[in-house]
Amino acid sequence: MNRLFVVKIGGNVIDRETDLEKFLKDFSGIREPKILIHGGGGIASKLGEQMGLKPVMVNGRRVTDASTLDLVTMVYGGLINKQITARLQQLGVNAIGVTGADGNLIKATKRPVGEVDYGFVGDLNEESVNSTLLYFLLKQNIIPILAPLTHAEGSMLNTNADTIASAVSVAMSKHFDVRLVYCFEKKGVLEDVSNPDSVIRSLNMPKYKQLLESGALQDGILPKIEGAFKAIHSGVKEVVIGNAGDLNRNTSLETTGTLLTLY
Amino acid sequence: MNRLFVVKIGGNVIDRETDLEKFLKDFSGIREPKILIHGGGGIASKLGEQMGLKPVMVNGRRVTDASTLDLVTMVYGGLINKQITARLQQLGVNAIGVTGADGNLIKATKRPVGEVDYGFVGDLNEESVNSTLLYFLLKQNIIPILAPLTHAEGSMLNTNADTIASAVSVAMSKHFDVRLVYCFEKKGVLEDVSNPDSVIRSLNMPKYKQLLESGALQDGILPKIEGAFKAIHSGVKEVVIGNAGDLNRNTSLETTGTLLTLY
Repeated sequence: MNRLFVVKIGGNVIDRETDLEKFLKDFSGIREPKILIHGGGGIASKLGEQMGLKPVMVNGRRVTDASTLDLVTMVYGGLINKQITARLQQLGVNAIGVTGADGNLIKATKRPVGEVDYGFVGDLNEESVNSTLLYFLLKQNIIPILAPLTHAEGSMLNTNADTIASAVSVAMSKHFDVRLVYCFEKKGVLEDVSNPDSVIRSLNMPKYKQLLESGALQDGILPKIEGAFKAIHSGVKEVVIGNAGDLNRNTSLETTGTLLTLY
Repeated sequence: MNRLFVVKIGGNVIDRETDLEKFLKDFSGIREPKILIHGGGGIASKLGEQMGLKPVMVNGRRVTDASTLDLVTMVYGGLINKQITARLQQLGVNAIGVTGADGNLIKATKRPVGEVDYGFVGDLNEESVNSTLLYFLLKQNIIPILAPLTHAEGSMLNTNADTIASAVSVAMSKHFDVRLVYCFEKKGVLEDVSNPDSVIRSLNMPKYKQLLESGALQDGILPKIEGAFKAIHSGVKEVVIGNAGDLNRNTSLETTGTLLTLY
């Protein structure tokens, strides 16, 4: 099967112009089929303040009320998504900026109200991703740029970008050998958090369990690793957790981030 | 050739929920291939005020400075475009919300600075519209929902929605018999402005010239009619100028708006 790179960037790249410029240039240089998923950025918070919105947090998680949904639809689905798309077009990438509503690419379920009502948040299931349309676009050499938004029952919904990246990677695994590249602020999963260069270069399930038992891994990285292995168990070939600045290497044979594989 | 309906709505429909709901329902009922172009709405001005933006007008035309470009990219390309798309999805239309940057659908030229610098405004030429991709989407039964935004040299650009509707109609005329439907607040071109029911049911070039000479037509409608005839001279089969509430009829044989044709 052909390779596909699914790359996820967060606000830390989007907010720093130099980092974003380098990232987009590197992304445009990837020769294989590729999909970009971007998160939000500081501009959403800044604009939210101007609009008089106060973030509502419950159990450390942000609640998406109707005004916040409008805000993220504008900023993620409009401003950030279109700016990235226009810039990639200039770099020679035939990018198409989309949300989950567009072409029914990602159909979600509004999160049920339990102890907490998270508001307009979309949860994904195994049938959520329209891999047929994504495949079809890639075949035309059109590169999807996904904002972290999904839809259900006529409404847009807010969905975590890491979750989308994982679901898209899993769904595309029937068409491609997928490498999912999570870009974050560090160079990879660190053996020693105080040493930014102590990257664990490769991590498989047995080694992960071992590190987990020894308590060597920081709490913050655990959900990312758990999500990565879940994707791998569902058909994704490889996951790399690394820095956006290292995208070139992390989409080549000699990765500098943490390469996660089954064995 | 098969028929294609290119429908344009403006802020007057978008701002009124009852009108928008009826319009989207009617649009979803069109059985032929179709493309929707939407304008802005009151929400852009409201949000602009909250952001502390003051509209800059020169010769009665709005200048698009960098902040205004961000605003329209968010509101037109994000909020309005995605809300319409999500709602059409629920109505059974496989809508894809896009701007001119997406898939390089509409490549513009930034308007040259003359006596006035209009800022980030995109002008179109005969090669601007990527009719291949539009055709390709329609063939997959994917319905393009276009925001009034184009791109050039890595930047988004603000472009008049009427102009986009016309350019798209002309470009698609090589694939389809195109009827362009301009929805506006009146029922059509009026013979007597004080009588909202005095719709001129059909208008060809000779009749138009005659009305023009007799001074019977209001100044406000002239650019719309001029644009319509320009489109017709460039291959568009028919143009209807009518009310959004009459979309059903205006996409059928018995139009209630003003039907413009060559002869």
